[in-house]
Amino acid sequence: MPAISPHFDTLRYTVDNGIATITLNRPEKLNAFTDTMMQEIVGALDVTDADDEVRCVVFTGAGRAFCAGADLSSGAESFNYAEQHDINVHADVDVDTVHRDSGGLVALRIFRSLKPVIGAVNGAAVGIGITMQLPMDIRLASTNARFGFVFGRRGITPEAASSWFLSRVVGMSAALEWCCTGRVFDADEALARDLVRSVHAPDDLLPAAYALAREIADNVAPVSVAMSRQMIWRMAGASHPIEAHRLDSRAVQSRGRSADAAEGVNAFLEKRQARFPDRVSTDMPGFFDWRSEPPFI
Amino acid sequence: MPAISPHFDTLRYTVDNGIATITLNRPEKLNAFTDTMMQEIVGALDVTDADDEVRCVVFTGAGRAFCAGADLSSGAESFNYAEQHDINVHADVDVDTVHRDSGGLVALRIFRSLKPVIGAVNGAAVGIGITMQLPMDIRLASTNARFGFVFGRRGITPEAASSWFLSRVVGMSAALEWCCTGRVFDADEALARDLVRSVHAPDDLLPAAYALAREIADNVAPVSVAMSRQMIWRMAGASHPIEAHRLDSRAVQSRGRSADAAEGVNAFLEKRQARFPDRVSTDMPGFFDWRSEPPFI
Amino acid sequence: MPAISPHFDTLRYTVDNGIATITLNRPEKLNAFTDTMMQEIVGALDVTDADDEVRCVVFTGAGRAFCAGADLSSGAESFNYAEQHDINVHADVDVDTVHRDSGGLVALRIFRSLKPVIGAVNGAAVGIGITMQLPMDIRLASTNARFGFVFGRRGITPEAASSWFLSRVVGMSAALEWCCTGRVFDADEALARDLVRSVHAPDDLLPAAYALAREIADNVAPVSVAMSRQMIWRMAGASHPIEAHRLDSRAVQSRGRSADAAEGVNAFLEKRQARFPDRVSTDMPGFFDWRSEPPFI
Repeated sequence: MPAISPHFDTLRYTVDNGIATITLNRPEKLNAFTDTMMQEIVGALDVTDADDEVRCVVFTGAGRAFCAGADLSSGAESFNYAEQHDINVHADVDVDTVHRDSGGLVALRIFRSLKPVIGAVNGAAVGIGITMQLPMDIRLASTNARFGFVFGRRGITPEAASSWFLSRVVGMSAALEWCCTGRVFDADEALARDLVRSVHAPDDLLPAAYALAREIADNVAPVSVAMSRQMIWRMAGASHPIEAHRLDSRAVQSRGRSADAAEGVNAFLEKRQARFPDRVSTDMPGFFDWRSEPPFI
Repeated sequence: MPAISPHFDTLRYTVDNGIATITLNRPEKLNAFTDTMMQEIVGALDVTDADDEVRCVVFTGAGRAFCAGADLSSGAESFNYAEQHDINVHADVDVDTVHRDSGGLVALRIFRSLKPVIGAVNGAAVGIGITMQLPMDIRLASTNARFGFVFGRRGITPEAASSWFLSRVVGMSAALEWCCTGRVFDADEALARDLVRSVHAPDDLLPAAYALAREIADNVAPVSVAMSRQMIWRMAGASHPIEAHRLDSRAVQSRGRSADAAEGVNAFLEKRQARFPDRVSTDMPGFFDWRSEPPFI
Repeated sequence: MPAISPHFDTLRYTVDNGIATITLNRPEKLNAFTDTMMQEIVGALDVTDADDEVRCVVFTGAGRAFCAGADLSSGAESFNYAEQHDINVHADVDVDTVHRDSGGLVALRIFRSLKPVIGAVNGAAVGIGITMQLPMDIRLASTNARFGFVFGRRGITPEAASSWFLSRVVGMSAALEWCCTGRVFDADEALARDLVRSVHAPDDLLPAAYALAREIADNVAPVSVAMSRQMIWRMAGASHPIEAHRLDSRAVQSRGRSADAAEGVNAFLEKRQARFPDRVSTDMPGFFDWRSEPPFI
């Protein structure tokens, strides 16, 4: 595990007492999303997955925004990915000429995270600024937060696999209304429609996020939480509960005979805090490829 | 595009400033659903899809009901589709002798709509009167609205593909309770359990529906909104977010180099309303068959 | 149908006026879950499915708990299923050495129930005590109820196919937060996040549950309600609404020509209570195998 925090250009990365904080850090640009930021978020989650000291990850933004969306400094060409990546596009987009959406690369990387991820939405979270948060496990907002699935107002469409994630977080009605209107809305509406789990005064946001992270880091077995979030996310698309039964029969049998389970039950019976010995880096059971992803075709 | 509004027997069809209103129009029968109404709703949505002037569709009911359900004027034989359609049914129903449910034909047509659809529930919406609304993108209710998934009380079962749609709109708990009890409930319960997004005094219902429609028509690129609603509806059943990533990588690449995206970004940077040039009739990208439907087998 | 109630060691089983009550009955152990209880719940649902007198099933707990979770009387070995079942486990779990999770056997049995199932949560419902309730159709809680998806705090993972069920009942956000933190929460939070449909004073809980059961038993055709709950549960994982359309076209055609439909419509038109003649034991249509389950592999 790294003795020194890795360096990133667009992020601040710190670890304190088991909790990694990844701060989007282009405050003068309202943390607008770039390809470099995409690569660095993916890289930062490779670090958190590999570092057994990290029990939970908190994302937030430097300055007054969380992330105001894609960087529009290229003006009208901002979303012209074919041009930017020198892709020879004919009339339409086929598999040989398609560029993988950068928001999707972030979203799928968070989806595959072995550590639980919390979004602390300190300000504007618009476009990729909010769609990147949908694969996070928990979202909290400041009263200063603003949200918008504004893609249609810019002439493009939802990205970052949000057409899959959003309805599973907030249901079809909110997903469709927000994406069809493209309007910006405040934290109260986000709370009322379950996009965030709670709203806080600006100064109380990070303490509330850390309190949740603390609850996980102090009490839950790291291997268990890695498996739990993977099981819940992956079963969100399963066609029948038998798929979960196949998976969790293996999971509880494998974990049930582990040192973690012995410690977990003993600690409970002795009414003390558990000290779980197993580690994500070495003890994830092998009956499932937890890091797998279907091919992009 | 039609210079004159098409004529229907069971519907009123009007277009005003980009918003089509389809009014179920058998007020003396509480807008009870018939095969003719089914065919006319399908036909009306063919018109709205083809007419680039239509940016959003609002459904409502004439008189005091939205739609009181299937027409029961045939009494005990009302649901005997085999008899009505002269189908030779033996002990059970196989593919050669099955009649496609008419509510499902409407629901699947709304599902495939290229224009966003808003339901303005002015009164009773019972049976097919509510299940036809589940594939709509947004639902609002008058305080006079009443709802009921009453199928079990008539000796039949949920239809209009509502066993797929309902839980995706309101979650499993409300879906199961409403269908198992078959009871009629009011607008407040519909709001509390997320079947409608807001409740209004009767005179405020259509203005509220039109305000939402206006927000879409005035601000969102027509091709973007058509693609967005299709992406969200179709990904609702996808097994893994990679399916959305495959689709939206193509979508943002295709739309990102469009005239709409250039105009959308320019208008945003210039803080003015966008005037999107692209049209649903001609500019939907060809990498996905947006109008497709799996076969009925 | 049984003239005498069947006897169980860990359950009380009674039927009164069409409503079966299954009471988890190890009050001195807070109704802790055992293999015997698993087998008896499965057996009791075989009885309710076969008994046409039973129109609805209510689950509750004897004493002050609903079910405090797995029986931990084996201490650190409580979850060591491989040891308990003499399974020769090498490094990992493959299909030849995997023991089917007992919670999943209960959950899948409730999923396949032909009678609607109501959970009346009188007290603590922790671990399997709450995951077994997720395939129930309706859940109500006493103000004394407490809930916890505590698996990660014991060093194991969610079971009972809850990684499939939970997000479909409460959405992804609550599912992930509860399973990642493992914390215990009260009835108000369960209500706010839609895990239960209502909260009641302790003495009012069973009357409220029976009022809902009564509404079903008195008004809804038994074959219709059996089909409705199966259709909604099975379509929860379907990839496209056409699957529901295929199923419900057959369902409404089959039921539409039944004696139940004739009675249902006549009773409605005559404004009287219906007396449905068809029986679950003999009249479930054969175009779908309502009792089927995919193999465990």
